[in-house]
Amino acid sequence: MPRFRLDIEYDGSLFAGWQHQADQPSVQQAIEQAIENFSGEAVRLRAAGRTDAGVHATAQVAHADLAKAWAGDKVRDAINAHLQAAGAHIAILKATIVPDDFDARFSATGRHYLYRILNRRAPAALEKGKVWWVPKRLDAGAMHEAAKVLLGRHDFTTFRSTQCQANSPVRTLERLDVSREGDMIEVRASARSFLHNQVRSMVGSLKRVGDGGWTADNLKAALEAQDRAACGQVAPPDGLFLIGVDYV
Amino acid sequence: MPRFRLDIEYDGSLFAGWQHQADQPSVQQAIEQAIENFSGEAVRLRAAGRTDAGVHATAQVAHADLAKAWAGDKVRDAINAHLQAAGAHIAILKATIVPDDFDARFSATGRHYLYRILNRRAPAALEKGKVWWVPKRLDAGAMHEAAKVLLGRHDFTTFRSTQCQANSPVRTLERLDVSREGDMIEVRASARSFLHNQVRSMVGSLKRVGDGGWTADNLKAALEAQDRAACGQVAPPDGLFLIGVDYV
Repeated sequence: MPRFRLDIEYDGSLFAGWQHQADQPSVQQAIEQAIENFSGEAVRLRAAGRTDAGVHATAQVAHADLAKAWAGDKVRDAINAHLQAAGAHIAILKATIVPDDFDARFSATGRHYLYRILNRRAPAALEKGKVWWVPKRLDAGAMHEAAKVLLGRHDFTTFRSTQCQANSPVRTLERLDVSREGDMIEVRASARSFLHNQVRSMVGSLKRVGDGGWTADNLKAALEAQDRAACGQVAPPDGLFLIGVDYV
Repeated sequence: MPRFRLDIEYDGSLFAGWQHQADQPSVQQAIEQAIENFSGEAVRLRAAGRTDAGVHATAQVAHADLAKAWAGDKVRDAINAHLQAAGAHIAILKATIVPDDFDARFSATGRHYLYRILNRRAPAALEKGKVWWVPKRLDAGAMHEAAKVLLGRHDFTTFRSTQCQANSPVRTLERLDVSREGDMIEVRASARSFLHNQVRSMVGSLKRVGDGGWTADNLKAALEAQDRAACGQVAPPDGLFLIGVDYV
């Protein structure tokens, strides 16, 4: 059976997350249903990143096996037509036949996230649900400097959800950049893989640096504590976007 | 009574437009209600641009008179608190005391609009309601060249809603630029003032140039016809944003 790679964009606001949930709408379920509607096949998708409720994606990647070697464009258009009919805010950007050993989750060699903080007195209006609104002025430069203590290979227990199912809390953080453009602060994080809630936990702690509550040394101490209780606030899902997945 | 200028951002998706409508939510009504909630005063706002249902703003300007000379920041925060409580996707970016002869509508010397077209095979997901989705490839360069025939002072009857209440169909179009960034085509239009539906009518006709249905000469002929029936498709409200208003 030919294997299809799907590149996917979605607005996570209306979903309980990527993954199947009993009695709640998931991105996975919506796409699987759309595939079944056009091909008659009940497939199971596997994705590079199992994003939480409210988290968005511009470049999620998933794979599924279909009975027929349809043209990729046909698969893309057919799934999109059914997603549109269902009113789902999900779009298949590309559908491509890939080798049988391609696995969207296990073949991924890098994951890239963007976190957006709207840093102004006025609440979000146009970007509601797509940013974390922080009215107090943040020092993005201080956040960027402090972020360097998290780079490299560490035990990230402090920045990991207590519900994280990964075997090891050790990860190698390759990038953690903070920049400001006007009222918007962007945090960009890259790693081979992340722990559950890792980006949001890091962003919440960086925000504490930005508002002057913490120094870079406090952030370093939090990391070294290897203790979930040492983490700052976990940033809300609204500002988080999966923006890229690498494969060799 | 001190006069306040309000700079306003809103997501037009959930509103029947700027202006009061019987039994339908309007941006104007939501803000007037929020002002009444904090000041106890029933005010009437006047805005620079009476945007239609589904049209957005990053920089709408309106004015209202209040009994007390509150500090601007206090007015901004108080209105925003009530708008947030009401769940309205509206934010007051700034509130400023202005001279009594400032009129958000009649003092405006320039208005700037942005129209966004998502030009890709896949439908909008993250940008749903904030773009016009056009799956067929458009030639943005040809659109930009053709747009030049609309620049300057003309009778814009062709590009004016039959319901337009302006006395004259003559307007001076100062800017009409089309550019592409990836899958997004941006049309930027500036004039002292616009006729009702003028931007959406021009964009709909430019789209026809972009998909090869019209040449620049066809566009010129449509303008010169001074006939609403000569207009191309009127672009949907979703992609339109009021992004700036000038005052001397």
